[in-house]
Amino acid sequence: MLTKEIHFASRPTGLPTLENFTFTESEVPALRDGEVLLRTLYISVDPYLRGRMREGKSYIPAFQIGQVIESAVVGQVVQSQAPNFNSGDIVVAQLGWRTYNVAKAGQLMRTVPGVSPSVALGVLGIPGLTAYFGLLDIGQPKVDETVVVSGAAGAVGMTVCQIAKFKGCHVIGIAGSDEKNKYLRDELGVETTINYKTTSSMFDALKEACPNGIDIYFDNVGGVVSDAVMPLINERARIVICGQISIYNSDKLEVGVKPQPFLVVRSAMMKGFIVTQYMPRFAEGISQLAQWFTSGQLKHAETIIEGFENTPDAFIGLFRGENLGKQVVKL
Amino acid sequence: MLTKEIHFASRPTGLPTLENFTFTESEVPALRDGEVLLRTLYISVDPYLRGRMREGKSYIPAFQIGQVIESAVVGQVVQSQAPNFNSGDIVVAQLGWRTYNVAKAGQLMRTVPGVSPSVALGVLGIPGLTAYFGLLDIGQPKVDETVVVSGAAGAVGMTVCQIAKFKGCHVIGIAGSDEKNKYLRDELGVETTINYKTTSSMFDALKEACPNGIDIYFDNVGGVVSDAVMPLINERARIVICGQISIYNSDKLEVGVKPQPFLVVRSAMMKGFIVTQYMPRFAEGISQLAQWFTSGQLKHAETIIEGFENTPDAFIGLFRGENLGKQVVKL
Repeated sequence: MLTKEIHFASRPTGLPTLENFTFTESEVPALRDGEVLLRTLYISVDPYLRGRMREGKSYIPAFQIGQVIESAVVGQVVQSQAPNFNSGDIVVAQLGWRTYNVAKAGQLMRTVPGVSPSVALGVLGIPGLTAYFGLLDIGQPKVDETVVVSGAAGAVGMTVCQIAKFKGCHVIGIAGSDEKNKYLRDELGVETTINYKTTSSMFDALKEACPNGIDIYFDNVGGVVSDAVMPLINERARIVICGQISIYNSDKLEVGVKPQPFLVVRSAMMKGFIVTQYMPRFAEGISQLAQWFTSGQLKHAETIIEGFENTPDAFIGLFRGENLGKQVVKL
Repeated sequence: MLTKEIHFASRPTGLPTLENFTFTESEVPALRDGEVLLRTLYISVDPYLRGRMREGKSYIPAFQIGQVIESAVVGQVVQSQAPNFNSGDIVVAQLGWRTYNVAKAGQLMRTVPGVSPSVALGVLGIPGLTAYFGLLDIGQPKVDETVVVSGAAGAVGMTVCQIAKFKGCHVIGIAGSDEKNKYLRDELGVETTINYKTTSSMFDALKEACPNGIDIYFDNVGGVVSDAVMPLINERARIVICGQISIYNSDKLEVGVKPQPFLVVRSAMMKGFIVTQYMPRFAEGISQLAQWFTSGQLKHAETIIEGFENTPDAFIGLFRGENLGKQVVKL
């Protein structure tokens, strides 16, 4: 039996292109004890994968040229040599960009019953957990505080916006289109939104949107958006550095407004994190997110691209800001 | 009775000059109940005072034009209307740059008996507490970690270097002269020092000095020294932003290498602080510092400028990096 698969063909310089990926086919290996064969239903494409395409040490190993790209994948068991999984079970795991994957039972998580399985790649998956731990553990939001979220219409950002609202905060969302911002306001209750692509001054827009200053900045993008935030932070502000999508395609040191002078005069804190450091608390996070989600309080949005062959383009589209919510590929 | 005093004459632009200060005399007011008259013995000059010379909101009110400059001052009681203070007592308080100050008993702290009173402006005063809480509470040093200290030969920096050694860390000190660096190595046991004024590449020098990367960066200076640190930080590094003396005389936003990309890939933390937020724990800090100091383990260095009339110049000299250890004026 053959599986299609997508290999990492070459390291991108700047924005990735389709030439960085090649499609091949390979024989699916026979199952061994404790393994299952999964038919891919959904593939997650995520900005952080750009970091794995760079050579050198990071928090996660770099992709090697020729290897199959990996990310979170939802699959359905079609054959099982593992006692606790049966044909038809739907699971999520870190797997290859393949139409069929062989996986060990130990690396699989079941998706939440009664919920569309793609949600396990979004609000009930790594992006949801990233929002949950980043905002609650590092951001420590308090009632009436002002929370600014960049990349607010992405999978992580929109979960952050909603949890911040649950905690009684004033939420300002920054995104790159009027449609995204309308969604944030109308569907998620975000009070004020800023379109960073059309505003004449991020600083003026933020200043007007945050009359009491900024207590938490949840940063998914970096760059000039973040530069405009710094002069407005309050004493003891918390800046959660979740992502820096604006510079993922650059190999240069990023030069811009340095935050240190603001951190010192405001006794403020800036912290980067990788969600896997919260692994021991994932069950807690998923349980709370699932409760919010199944009660209808927490909303999920996704942009679905159809077809395995469109996976590389779906990934590249993240950097063009095409997605509202979680970008997933449906097979 | 007359006291000499130093008024804030005009706001500096860039490096302060003698023209920003005026000397006058005024009548010492009669003591009221609960007050003492203090003859000034030592005046502390500190980099943070530059921030108070700037107009606008900061963590501490700006000096108003015409007011007497204030900083930490050691004085001897020459007259007392307070039951718990007697003539001859030596105390420290936040007071005016005057030859005589009238102070309320409630604002006075006694200096540690048997110790030169000027030490209350250094290692057993605000600079010592700044080092203590910044390094231990924010930096959280662990045995065998690598600690880099900028402004290492200043009052705060040299205390940080020593406490980091007590905690079993590898300490790299950065200062601006070979004499300072020799002192750090020979007297304080700092393993490696870098002269930022003469090194051809801060990055190369740091990389060589820190073969295991940097776990804690205690930053007193900011600027290009800090830029060179960022690529070398380890996972979960802690960056303590204590001061940014390299830019205190600038009114522009500081532009340079942005730390956010490094913070996110290393799950690192950067935190500014003002020592007064630790006020409830000052007694703990002074007690531990005094124990280290009186046992001879913790060393104190100071640069003494003689004469009240030289106070403004002693302050300005801080930005020329003239001081080894605490810069104080002796009357």
